[in-house]
Amino acid sequence: MKIGVFDSGFGGLTVLRALLERIPGADYLYLGDTARLPYGAKSRATVARYAASSARFLVGEGAESLVIACNTASALALDAIREAVPVPVLGVVETGANAARASSRTRDVLVIATAATVESHAYAAACAERGLQTIEKACPLLVPLVEEGWIEHPVTAEVLRIYLSELMEQARIEGLHPDTLVLGCTHYPLLRGQIERAVPAGMQVIDSAAVTAEQVAKTFGAGSLDEAQPRARFFATDSVAKFRALGSRFLARTIERVEWVDLGG
Amino acid sequence: MKIGVFDSGFGGLTVLRALLERIPGADYLYLGDTARLPYGAKSRATVARYAASSARFLVGEGAESLVIACNTASALALDAIREAVPVPVLGVVETGANAARASSRTRDVLVIATAATVESHAYAAACAERGLQTIEKACPLLVPLVEEGWIEHPVTAEVLRIYLSELMEQARIEGLHPDTLVLGCTHYPLLRGQIERAVPAGMQVIDSAAVTAEQVAKTFGAGSLDEAQPRARFFATDSVAKFRALGSRFLARTIERVEWVDLGG
Repeated sequence: MKIGVFDSGFGGLTVLRALLERIPGADYLYLGDTARLPYGAKSRATVARYAASSARFLVGEGAESLVIACNTASALALDAIREAVPVPVLGVVETGANAARASSRTRDVLVIATAATVESHAYAAACAERGLQTIEKACPLLVPLVEEGWIEHPVTAEVLRIYLSELMEQARIEGLHPDTLVLGCTHYPLLRGQIERAVPAGMQVIDSAAVTAEQVAKTFGAGSLDEAQPRARFFATDSVAKFRALGSRFLARTIERVEWVDLGG
Repeated sequence: MKIGVFDSGFGGLTVLRALLERIPGADYLYLGDTARLPYGAKSRATVARYAASSARFLVGEGAESLVIACNTASALALDAIREAVPVPVLGVVETGANAARASSRTRDVLVIATAATVESHAYAAACAERGLQTIEKACPLLVPLVEEGWIEHPVTAEVLRIYLSELMEQARIEGLHPDTLVLGCTHYPLLRGQIERAVPAGMQVIDSAAVTAEQVAKTFGAGSLDEAQPRARFFATDSVAKFRALGSRFLARTIERVEWVDLGG
């Protein structure tokens, strides 16, 4: 089984990392569209165009199913991707919403994500289909803080405190009682420790990587488990050296080789 | 006279704003390559490819000279742009280095910029040609803080304090006595007030917008001054609505109309 994993950059490697643990018998193709990242501040039309060309590339390389590990692309372009390729496609917004439904007792959930994901209201729509009320908040400083490496840093703690207190205040005004927070961006699992310290006691924090791997195993099958060594190929549209260096942090293992690909950007 | 002004996004509008004041008799074409921004974290080859196609577009629309109002593109791609088009090209790195030479008495200057600009050492090279010693520092959180609108905000003050104290400490270790700080990114003039409060007393802060407009007037001529109303056309490769909304903040005037252009990204 060959699974294509797509993200605009490195964040999706947190999803690949969970997949490698959950489905070790599969082959993986990972594409980071690093020459055109970040998708988070771009329009639906542009994100759909980029994501569709990326999906076609992965299927051309042999992917038999696709995991869209980019929240922005899942939110803005899932239909465009499904039209562009003839293989099954699963996006992190659906898997995050499924996990929120399983977690929440109050049926009120919070979502933090990039500006484009929030403006699309894709999480709110997916949660509403599952009987959940949602408040979404754009947190555009969190990705650059992660990329600066300020993970356990007082500035990051203060930025999280500001974002989460604004979110809780909005919930209070709207009369909601949220008990679940969805991390709607693949960079955010790296801040999970800080986030869990910043949320009110008892609130569940859902990270899309683990729940996505679980659902991929259910949907596409966990594959043959006797193959101990999963194989992964890595592609990037920008500097392969930078991908190797930064990507290893997200994947939590060394990336030996990255292949450059020109998607015409 | 028709002047093309190019940036990866909105920041270059601070340069256009200074040009409109300094050379009101010219016509302007402004292109923000917003579908492929930010350039700041991308490789030289990718930035050169994007910048050359953007420059060709502006010359195709009639630009008789080009101002590269993007520090990253000026640092990484000025030669590629000059090869791509047959008109005179001026970049903000040169104009910033000229202003630093005019300002500094100690001949030691500091530069803050994006990661790609700093890694290129373009400011250090341009300053060295002018007899200046330079320490450069990447400040990747400042652009997202400006775009979040956290201009007069305690988190921004704290981030600036950390970046500038690291920079001053490095100068101390290297035995330099800097008296001039170059803002090597077109977003930073919006933080000029905060930055001037954070630097040691007596340090000159150089913002590229004003010094670039001055040098464009000297190099390309200030044009006929009897034409009171300058004309400007705006192009963007991503959402024109977002360009209108965000761009007005950088230009400090309303942008009525933005034309979408597809550069194949």
